[in-house]
Amino acid sequence: MPQIDLNCDAGESYGDWKMGDDAAMFKLVSSVNIACGGHAGDIRTMADSIQLAVENELGIGAHPSFEDKANFGRRRHAMSPVEIERMVAYQVGGLAAIAALQGAKLDHVKAHGALSNLASVEKEVADAIARATRAISPDLILLAVAGTQLQSAGERANLKTIAEGFADRSYDATGQLTPRSQPGAVIHDATLAAQHCVDMATGRGLPRKDGGFVACEVQSICVHGDTPGAVAITTACRQALESTGFEVTSFASKLD
Amino acid sequence: MPQIDLNCDAGESYGDWKMGDDAAMFKLVSSVNIACGGHAGDIRTMADSIQLAVENELGIGAHPSFEDKANFGRRRHAMSPVEIERMVAYQVGGLAAIAALQGAKLDHVKAHGALSNLASVEKEVADAIARATRAISPDLILLAVAGTQLQSAGERANLKTIAEGFADRSYDATGQLTPRSQPGAVIHDATLAAQHCVDMATGRGLPRKDGGFVACEVQSICVHGDTPGAVAITTACRQALESTGFEVTSFASKLD
Amino acid sequence: MPQIDLNCDAGESYGDWKMGDDAAMFKLVSSVNIACGGHAGDIRTMADSIQLAVENELGIGAHPSFEDKANFGRRRHAMSPVEIERMVAYQVGGLAAIAALQGAKLDHVKAHGALSNLASVEKEVADAIARATRAISPDLILLAVAGTQLQSAGERANLKTIAEGFADRSYDATGQLTPRSQPGAVIHDATLAAQHCVDMATGRGLPRKDGGFVACEVQSICVHGDTPGAVAITTACRQALESTGFEVTSFASKLD
Amino acid sequence: MPQIDLNCDAGESYGDWKMGDDAAMFKLVSSVNIACGGHAGDIRTMADSIQLAVENELGIGAHPSFEDKANFGRRRHAMSPVEIERMVAYQVGGLAAIAALQGAKLDHVKAHGALSNLASVEKEVADAIARATRAISPDLILLAVAGTQLQSAGERANLKTIAEGFADRSYDATGQLTPRSQPGAVIHDATLAAQHCVDMATGRGLPRKDGGFVACEVQSICVHGDTPGAVAITTACRQALESTGFEVTSFASKLD
Repeated sequence: MPQIDLNCDAGESYGDWKMGDDAAMFKLVSSVNIACGGHAGDIRTMADSIQLAVENELGIGAHPSFEDKANFGRRRHAMSPVEIERMVAYQVGGLAAIAALQGAKLDHVKAHGALSNLASVEKEVADAIARATRAISPDLILLAVAGTQLQSAGERANLKTIAEGFADRSYDATGQLTPRSQPGAVIHDATLAAQHCVDMATGRGLPRKDGGFVACEVQSICVHGDTPGAVAITTACRQALESTGFEVTSFASKLD
Repeated sequence: MPQIDLNCDAGESYGDWKMGDDAAMFKLVSSVNIACGGHAGDIRTMADSIQLAVENELGIGAHPSFEDKANFGRRRHAMSPVEIERMVAYQVGGLAAIAALQGAKLDHVKAHGALSNLASVEKEVADAIARATRAISPDLILLAVAGTQLQSAGERANLKTIAEGFADRSYDATGQLTPRSQPGAVIHDATLAAQHCVDMATGRGLPRKDGGFVACEVQSICVHGDTPGAVAITTACRQALESTGFEVTSFASKLD
Repeated sequence: MPQIDLNCDAGESYGDWKMGDDAAMFKLVSSVNIACGGHAGDIRTMADSIQLAVENELGIGAHPSFEDKANFGRRRHAMSPVEIERMVAYQVGGLAAIAALQGAKLDHVKAHGALSNLASVEKEVADAIARATRAISPDLILLAVAGTQLQSAGERANLKTIAEGFADRSYDATGQLTPRSQPGAVIHDATLAAQHCVDMATGRGLPRKDGGFVACEVQSICVHGDTPGAVAITTACRQALESTGFEVTSFASKLD
Repeated sequence: MPQIDLNCDAGESYGDWKMGDDAAMFKLVSSVNIACGGHAGDIRTMADSIQLAVENELGIGAHPSFEDKANFGRRRHAMSPVEIERMVAYQVGGLAAIAALQGAKLDHVKAHGALSNLASVEKEVADAIARATRAISPDLILLAVAGTQLQSAGERANLKTIAEGFADRSYDATGQLTPRSQPGAVIHDATLAAQHCVDMATGRGLPRKDGGFVACEVQSICVHGDTPGAVAITTACRQALESTGFEVTSFASKLD
C-alpha cells in the first residue's frame, strides 16, 4: 500500500492566545511541525502539543523561526548564516528537551515562514539549517519545500530529506509557489485541495495555477491549520488520499 | 593526587554588553557554568563561551535561570515546579544544541541566582530541575550548593551530583550562606578566599563567619568572575589549592 | 437623565493572535481600557484600538500591566513601588503618544490583572500608580475597583477617581470579589448580569453572592469582552440600564 | 559669545550590564540622548539618566531605536514607515512619562543606530520620525545628522531642527560619513577630534577624510561615550571649543 504523509504546523498558540484547532487537526494529519518559541509557542504550549502528538501517534517535528512573535515569524531578519544556524539549533534543542520530558523524541525539523522562504532560495541559509539539524542528531529528518535550496542542503548534509508540496497553494510554471498577493494563490475549495493532494501523491506533480503540472516527487503534503475551513479541507484531503489507496502515515514512522 | 574542581559562572554577557573577564577566568578554573539565555547569554555569547571552554579543556555546564535579563535572574518568578522543569529543559536543551554545533557536549547543569536559591530550599523545585536535567541526558552531572534540597534531588534522581562551596562567601552555623546584606557575607580578601578553598578541599568543611567550620564534603568550589578583583582572588585560590597538593580539574573529566 | 459608564478591556490582541470581539464590544460600551504593551497589545493593535474608540466616541483608557505577555499579566511580579510607578508611566506614556498620532487623547488609566489586584490591597503600590498617572497628566482619570486602596490613592493624589463594579462577578459580605475558584464567582447568565448593572447603577450596591448588597457607590460598570457570551451579556446590560432610564456614557465625556 | 552644543548618547546600560561612563560624560556635554528601551535602557536606567541630566542641567533627548537589544539597535528591521512612526512614538512617549516622574521634560529626539541611518536616506522614514516627534509635542526639537533626509523632514514638519556633526568621524566628499569599515572612519586621536569640533563650530564645515571640508552648518556636535578614550576625547573637544570662544550649551536652553 503506497504511503503519503500529511503535515501541518501546530503549537502556534502563545499563552492565552490561541491559534488553530490542534485537537481536530491532530486527528487528521500524520506529522506535526511544532512551534519552538521563535514565532509562537510558550513552554506549556510546546509540552501540550508534544503530548497531543504522542497520543495521536504522529511524527513530531520542530518548527524553528526567526524570533519574532509580534510578526509571527513572517518577516526576514538581517542575520548571517552562522547566526541562523545557532538560532535554529537553540530552538530545536529547546523543543527536543521538552519532548524528552514527555518521553518523546523529535522526528523532523521544518523551517517556518520567512526563514523557510529564505532557506528556499539562499544556499548558505539552507546549509546553516541543515547543519543545525544534523548537529542535534543525524537521525533528524529535514522536511523541506520540494525543489528548494533547503531540500538540496538536507541531501548534501546526508540528512534524510523529505520534499513537501502544499495542498492549498498553487504553483507557477517553474514550481514556485504563486505569491499570496495573486488571485488563485491560496485554495479555499476543499475538493480542489483534495485533488491536489492526489495529484501530488500519485506523482503527477505540483499543480500549476494555469493548469497542468510541474514534475516533482513529493513525500509529504502540507495542510494549514490556521485558516478558515482548515479542518474541512484537511478532512477532504485525507479522505481523497485514502480513497485513492494511500495510507496516510508519517515519513518518520517508516524508520522504526 | 587529590582533585578539586574550581567553577565559575561564564558567558554572562549580552550582545554588546560585557560581563566578567571570561578570557582570564577560563585560564584559572576547571569548570564553567554558561548562561543559556535566561538571565544572560545571546546565541553568539553562548557559542563563543562553549568554544573558549573547549580550548581551555574545561568542564562545560549549562546555567539555567528564570527568564529575566533585566534583573539578571536575581528575582523569583511565580512559576510552578512543572513550569520550572520545562523552562530549565528548554534552556539547557538550547545550549546543548549550540554546544553540539561546536563539537562539544555539556557536562553539567547548575541553577542560577533566584532559581538556585529557590531550588536550595524547595524540594519540588529541586526535583523539577533534577528531572529536567535527567530528561536531557542521564549522563549530565548536577552541580548543587552543598547541603541543599537540590543536592538531595540530584541524588534522588540518580544523577551524579557534585556539592559546591563558595570561596568568597561565609556561612552561618547551620551551613547556610550568610545573607549578602550582612557584613562579612562576601569575602574580598584573596588570601582569606584562598584559605577557604583549602579548608573546603581538605575536608575541614564550610568556613563559618564566626570562625570554625560546618562539616560538609565539597567536590567543587565556586569563584565569581564578575566582581572586582575576581581574577586576583581566583589566582590566589588556585595557587593555594595547588600548593596544598591538589590537582584542579573538572569533576566531569573524571568520567572519561 | 442619570448617567452610568460601561467599560471593557480592549486591544488585547497581539500580532496575529486575536482576543475578544472589539468591533462588537465597542458598539456597546462607553469606555475602553486599551492594553499598552504590558500583558497584550502591539503598536498596530494599540493604534487600531485607539482609532476604533475614536470612531465610536468612547472614553479612552490605558490599561497598564506587569510586563508578561506569556501569562497575560495575570501573575504578580516582584517589583518595588517605585519600579511599578516607572513601569506604569512608561506604558501609559507610550500609549498616550500613539493616541496623539491618531489625534486622540487618553481619558483614563485602569490597572490590569495582577497589578490591579495588588493595587487593590497594597497602599504603596496604589500610590505608585496614582503618581504615575498624575505625572503624565493631572487631567487623567483613575478608574479603580470600588472600595480598594487604588480608589483611595487616586483621591489622595487629587485625581478624578471613578469607582467601578463588575457586571459579571459576585461579591462577598465585605465587598471583595468572590475568588474565581469559588462557584458563583463569575456570572454567565445575561439576565443576572444585567440585573447587577441596574442594582449598582441605581445605588443598591454591590450584589453579594449570598443575596443582598454591600453599600457602595459605583460610577462605572466593567463588562468582560473575552469570555464566551460577552457580547450577549453586554447587550443585555446596556438594554437593562437604558430601560431603567440611564444614559450609558463615559465618565470622561462629562469633563468636556 | 557664540554657542555650540555637545551631545552624547546616554543611558545605554541595561540592568546589570553597564555601557559608557555617563557620570563623567554628563559633566562634559551639554545635551544627552537617552535610550528609551529600544536598543538599551530599562526603567531604572532611564529614570537615573534623566535624574543625572537634570542635576547637570543638560538638554534631555529621547534616543529611539529599532527594538533590538541583542544587536544594540544596529540592524535594520523590516518595518513600514507607519510602523516606525508608532514605534518611535511609543518609546519617546514612554521616556517622556518617566521624565515627568522626575519633574523633567524632554527637549529633543534623536534617532539611534540603524534607525538613524535609515532616516538619513529614506524620506518616508524621516517623515515618520518627524510626525511621531511632533505628535508628542510640537515643542520637541529634532536632532538630525546634518544634511540628511531627517533634517529636511524635521524642517518640513515645522519642528525646530538641529543639525549635528560628529567629532570622531570623518566625511567623504559629499558630506556622508565614511563607513566604519574604512580606515580613518573613526577618529581615536583627541587632538584631531577637538580640531574637528572647532572646524564645525566655526563654520568651516564637515572635515573630509582626504582633507578639506564639506560646507555645512552644524549647531551640535556628537561625541561618543562608549568608546575607549571617550572621556579624554570629549574633554579635549570641550576645551578646544571653549578656548576658541564658544559657550558649550544645549540648543534647548536657548528656548527658555
